[in-house]
Amino acid sequence: MTVKEDIKSISRVLTFWDKLTDAQQNLILDRIVTEKYQKGSTIHSGDMDCIGVLLIKKGEVRIYILSDEGKEITLYRLGEGEVCILSASCILDNITFDVHIDAETDSEVLVIDSNVYKQICRQNIYAESFTDKLVIDRFSDVMWAMEQILFMSFDKRLAIFLFDEITRNQTDMIDLTHEQIAKYVGSAREVVSRMLKYFANEGIVELSRGGVKVINKKKLKSLTL
Amino acid sequence: MTVKEDIKSISRVLTFWDKLTDAQQNLILDRIVTEKYQKGSTIHSGDMDCIGVLLIKKGEVRIYILSDEGKEITLYRLGEGEVCILSASCILDNITFDVHIDAETDSEVLVIDSNVYKQICRQNIYAESFTDKLVIDRFSDVMWAMEQILFMSFDKRLAIFLFDEITRNQTDMIDLTHEQIAKYVGSAREVVSRMLKYFANEGIVELSRGGVKVINKKKLKSLTL
Repeated sequence: MTVKEDIKSISRVLTFWDKLTDAQQNLILDRIVTEKYQKGSTIHSGDMDCIGVLLIKKGEVRIYILSDEGKEITLYRLGEGEVCILSASCILDNITFDVHIDAETDSEVLVIDSNVYKQICRQNIYAESFTDKLVIDRFSDVMWAMEQILFMSFDKRLAIFLFDEITRNQTDMIDLTHEQIAKYVGSAREVVSRMLKYFANEGIVELSRGGVKVINKKKLKSLTL
Repeated sequence: MTVKEDIKSISRVLTFWDKLTDAQQNLILDRIVTEKYQKGSTIHSGDMDCIGVLLIKKGEVRIYILSDEGKEITLYRLGEGEVCILSASCILDNITFDVHIDAETDSEVLVIDSNVYKQICRQNIYAESFTDKLVIDRFSDVMWAMEQILFMSFDKRLAIFLFDEITRNQTDMIDLTHEQIAKYVGSAREVVSRMLKYFANEGIVELSRGGVKVINKKKLKSLTL
């Protein structure tokens, strides 16, 4: 199943690769599978599954928490070449919470089976240490998100989101509904719509059906500072 | 400086103790100091210091984040026999955020100097792994707090706080101002006062200067479910 190119990227991303025995390397390579996810589809949902460790080949995934009432809070996103570890939270002893993971764009990921990964971590201290440090990186991401959500004024938060979007996609057009933007910034649709209308009145954006166009990047930027 | 009793508790709490060389153990014992903190005093404030790893002998400490505007969000608390690692965040490579730590009650802690601790972690993989797992435990605590704050209705959140307080202190009286309660539950004083007034009208609590008395524990409990 695994092509040469995949093996190369696996060994580059999993920094403990060279510390594994041949048998351990082969175990991973035998059990790794490539999965494709369409934009918007669910990759992992809370404690419903424990899909495994994801190596993102193409695309972007969003990791978020979901309340009983359906409210979403985005924790962080991961892109090409990054490893998603919380999709295997069931094998992480000290992780007692669950997250949801969606494909943000059409994505292709290599999936290492949870049980195989757990076995490797038990056998190899470098794999275990790599995993722990990956989780701790995500802890820092979550703290950042938490500070944004709890401390930052909403105009600044929304401005940062819009500015990041146009920078990342290299276009002034943001093809997202107010509902979708609300999910990303962890707010309600009404709150987003109100603030976007304010931004439009200020000449920062132009609103259209299903999209937002940034028309004054400089002014938007100044709101993010 | 270190008495026999302290060495016992150090070796019990730091589960990697037996894996250290005599020289490493002595390095820690030589450099460990006992500090006493009065109720309400600051132990660690953001990136202003990097006091070291704390072993709590007596009392309770509160770990929180603080906005530029002075808003506090409590992340978790640690008590007797627990280890506080984020007070040494400067030595943790993958931690990019800062927290504040206060003594909740009169407290006595053993402090292991940051540099000594870092040196031990570099030399000993068990110490490093212990540290990583401790941080990951706190990640789970923070996610719990985040879900409480972001998802839970405020009446439930406040009821849980009050119920935990009277259970923990084994008294129906909560000697905290609305301002203090607001800090603990990550809200504003006005919001707390309004909800406490509602609870009082419902016959759940009685309000007095600088305190809240729970008069209907059963009703309070039902709000927490």
